[in-house]
Amino acid sequence: MDTKYDVVAIGNAIVDILADADDSFIAEEGMTKGSMQLMFSPEQADALYAKMKAGQEVSGGSAANTVAGVAALGGRAGFIGQVADDQLGQVFAHDIKATGVDYTTVTRAGEPSTARCLILVTPDGQRTMNTFLGASQFLPASALDEDMIRASKILYLEGYLWDPEEPRAAMKRAIEVAKDAGRWVAFTLSDVFCIERHGDDFRRMVDDGTIDILFANEKELLALCQTDDLEAALVRAHKEVGVLVVTRSEQGALAMYNDIRFDVPARAVDVVDTTGAGDLFAAGVLYGITNNVPLDRSMHIGAVCAAEIISHVGARPRADLKALIAEKIPA
Amino acid sequence: MDTKYDVVAIGNAIVDILADADDSFIAEEGMTKGSMQLMFSPEQADALYAKMKAGQEVSGGSAANTVAGVAALGGRAGFIGQVADDQLGQVFAHDIKATGVDYTTVTRAGEPSTARCLILVTPDGQRTMNTFLGASQFLPASALDEDMIRASKILYLEGYLWDPEEPRAAMKRAIEVAKDAGRWVAFTLSDVFCIERHGDDFRRMVDDGTIDILFANEKELLALCQTDDLEAALVRAHKEVGVLVVTRSEQGALAMYNDIRFDVPARAVDVVDTTGAGDLFAAGVLYGITNNVPLDRSMHIGAVCAAEIISHVGARPRADLKALIAEKIPA
Repeated sequence: MDTKYDVVAIGNAIVDILADADDSFIAEEGMTKGSMQLMFSPEQADALYAKMKAGQEVSGGSAANTVAGVAALGGRAGFIGQVADDQLGQVFAHDIKATGVDYTTVTRAGEPSTARCLILVTPDGQRTMNTFLGASQFLPASALDEDMIRASKILYLEGYLWDPEEPRAAMKRAIEVAKDAGRWVAFTLSDVFCIERHGDDFRRMVDDGTIDILFANEKELLALCQTDDLEAALVRAHKEVGVLVVTRSEQGALAMYNDIRFDVPARAVDVVDTTGAGDLFAAGVLYGITNNVPLDRSMHIGAVCAAEIISHVGARPRADLKALIAEKIPA
Repeated sequence: MDTKYDVVAIGNAIVDILADADDSFIAEEGMTKGSMQLMFSPEQADALYAKMKAGQEVSGGSAANTVAGVAALGGRAGFIGQVADDQLGQVFAHDIKATGVDYTTVTRAGEPSTARCLILVTPDGQRTMNTFLGASQFLPASALDEDMIRASKILYLEGYLWDPEEPRAAMKRAIEVAKDAGRWVAFTLSDVFCIERHGDDFRRMVDDGTIDILFANEKELLALCQTDDLEAALVRAHKEVGVLVVTRSEQGALAMYNDIRFDVPARAVDVVDTTGAGDLFAAGVLYGITNNVPLDRSMHIGAVCAAEIISHVGARPRADLKALIAEKIPA
């Protein structure tokens, strides 16, 4: 069957609100630097927002950032995610469509509002995320555009979606649809705390062959495999997973494919804001895999995309990624 | 009487939506590059937004940017401007308060929504602005915090407010309040097209002593004085205006005070986005004037603030302006 898309992602549809913060603020608020924590009420979100410095709003969401990257690289991408009928929902929809991603999910009327992620950027460029899931947690299985999923080489899902109940059920349905159509399922573990909450589910999907391509950073992989031995974790996670991709911050990234390991170094860059580094690395790899690019080159494409993202504030690419790839890693 | 504030500004309360655009797009849309044009309906705003690239949202508004700069420099500032009871209104209120500016204007229920300015940033860093004034055009005189105006050394107004009827009336009332309290009135001409629309009003205020401190860029000053001779315009505008400040892009800026001319060069900087350069120059000068800083040094402070703003996207300062001044122009 013909495929209209390279990658269709399902993810939280979030607008990021980024502001600078000192390390002391992160400590006082009892946050774990570099992690994502959920805020369960709008009041909690408002209270934190009131304490934050003046910020800037940029569309975000992990899987949404990834498909925006795929589209920026010239890939064909779609996105499924729930926003509310409000201004931030309009911003999210505008921005993802403006990057060339097909986005057809119908907005949800009434409360809660569109998801927002309050991101505190510390002087070292690390981001500490506080997410109010809002409308995003009410993505029902009925909102899935199943034709879009069937028409895509890869269905890409984020671990974050396992937190709220409705999207978790929707994900399971989406996986069925993709598998029935003979498509690959790619998955990102998202966050260490997310693995603490849903590790059993994730391990089952890794072991039973549900996940064809797995993305994780090193900490997440170790948490998933319940070990502190990277080599053991690679063997464990790669067993039923076709392609395993592990990002390692300034140590670069590695991939396992057919028991062969590929390592790529990180690209030198002045770190401004690490938000979206993993998302854009995944974009490069997914673009490559779906466009007949060898895996080692796909990893280099991911590294260039990640370097672009962390050189500025916000998790969506600003530079022309196609031109950047041609310049940095000529074919 | 004691003054609680150095500067209280009245201005449009706007959230900027900034996106990159090619020169060809500006031409196709029939826009005048570097200018501000008004959009009179939400439909017009939505139609342009739909054609724009993915953007980022940052609080803006000319006079609001200026008081945010005054506060960032350590000055005491207040702001008066109308937002709606919506998400962009919350963003605006949060951001101006987070910079340390007092902001007490009550939100306005119902339609229209909070003002937004669709800003197209061309590769040369110039910004072409398309403003939907929304709630901002309904600032009534009754919304003025007159105690705040009386308690400020300087009342700062933007020419843009002369476009909509209610704020124009509110400005006239605000000027009365300030004058009765023996305060100075500072005014920015805002935009050449704005002068085309309201030049008679502006000339009257320049000639009858209403305006104590006048800010303009070179083009605006020439338009106001209906001449193309800068020297003649300086003499003409300075007659009844105590301090005349003229910004001249890469040629720096000049001030006239007691018939003496002060020139300052522009600071070398990589131009990313010129949005807010004039606003922040005014911030430096107003901060200086209200804090016993000599006028020539105040102008240098303005130049450093303007250079900071144009080195990044968005019209609110990101760097620590106090530290920057101490580093760049030690006392």
